[in-house]
Amino acid sequence: MLRYPNGKKFQPKRTFSKKNVVKKDERFSNRGMTLEGDINETNEYYRSHGIAVIHKKPTPLQIVNVHYPKRSAAVVTEAYFKKPSTTDYNGVYKGKYIDFEVKETKNKTNFPLKNFHDHQVTHMEQVIEHGGIAFTLLRFSFHDEVYFVFARDLLPYFKHTGTNRKSIPKIDIERMGTQIPIGFHPRIDYLKILDKMM
Amino acid sequence: MLRYPNGKKFQPKRTFSKKNVVKKDERFSNRGMTLEGDINETNEYYRSHGIAVIHKKPTPLQIVNVHYPKRSAAVVTEAYFKKPSTTDYNGVYKGKYIDFEVKETKNKTNFPLKNFHDHQVTHMEQVIEHGGIAFTLLRFSFHDEVYFVFARDLLPYFKHTGTNRKSIPKIDIERMGTQIPIGFHPRIDYLKILDKMM
Repeated sequence: MLRYPNGKKFQPKRTFSKKNVVKKDERFSNRGMTLEGDINETNEYYRSHGIAVIHKKPTPLQIVNVHYPKRSAAVVTEAYFKKPSTTDYNGVYKGKYIDFEVKETKNKTNFPLKNFHDHQVTHMEQVIEHGGIAFTLLRFSFHDEVYFVFARDLLPYFKHTGTNRKSIPKIDIERMGTQIPIGFHPRIDYLKILDKMM
Repeated sequence: MLRYPNGKKFQPKRTFSKKNVVKKDERFSNRGMTLEGDINETNEYYRSHGIAVIHKKPTPLQIVNVHYPKRSAAVVTEAYFKKPSTTDYNGVYKGKYIDFEVKETKNKTNFPLKNFHDHQVTHMEQVIEHGGIAFTLLRFSFHDEVYFVFARDLLPYFKHTGTNRKSIPKIDIERMGTQIPIGFHPRIDYLKILDKMM
């Protein structure tokens, strides 16, 4: 059990995610949790067991209006979801910089590339250039399969987006990546896969 | 000049910050920019010059209400600022995990400890445990001085918060830390200081 310096129990706040807002249906898939929920729970496990310090970044919002009531907290009254300028997750594991993106698709045979923003592709390239460990966790919700795929293997597919290629065949992801068995605690032990592959 | 794979010019979005919302007066201090503005501009310089990949995390908001107008973007109509669960800045530099917090005070002789949340103190401790590089950039706005202070030197002061100690004397920060000369481009070259100190 992790505790604050003041002894209070450490309860990481779950960031309210655009996915949970927009794709309500997905909130109940994968045994009551989204992939994101599973990853957040896994990261919480890693932190509380002293394995790694990895957090999800807050959902980026463009704040337009804020109201300041007297004697109470400021209220954001108008804000819009922004495309993230980086991947959603990063942190430190065994002194190394870890950076990854989590995506899921309902598509049965392909993973659509549009799931990744240009910013995120650029960011993954930069992380690799600077010696960080960049990867993705890709879920096929129909098959309930999650794959660990290094960014270096995924990035070449984005170079073809000028042509007809708009998605990655599932068979390629099975070949390039490693399927992560979905457990209970932690639910998606992606660092175990990372250890095997390095 | 950094470009997307599609050739589009890379223009990092500036995250709308709680500081900019709440402390309007500070938006015009330090030659037209907040310390945060200077740091964001410095990180942009580091990225565009291939020196490091460091980003500010979005301001964490607790979203309460979202409106979905037909044929237009979802609008957050009620949200509240949350205390961050980590420091505001992290990234990768020469393969190393970099993590830091930026704070400023109007106090002339002491740096109030209340500027740091329990979450952030715990996070800095965890980053050090896992071999990351954790530090703070502390600005005394009255003197317009910015100091680079390693978290390992700062953390002991939080252990005394049970007693009368509620702030760090400026003289201690001058002794423990290194003053960062404020330049033009980049404005606050904190990685140069980090290189010297390692």
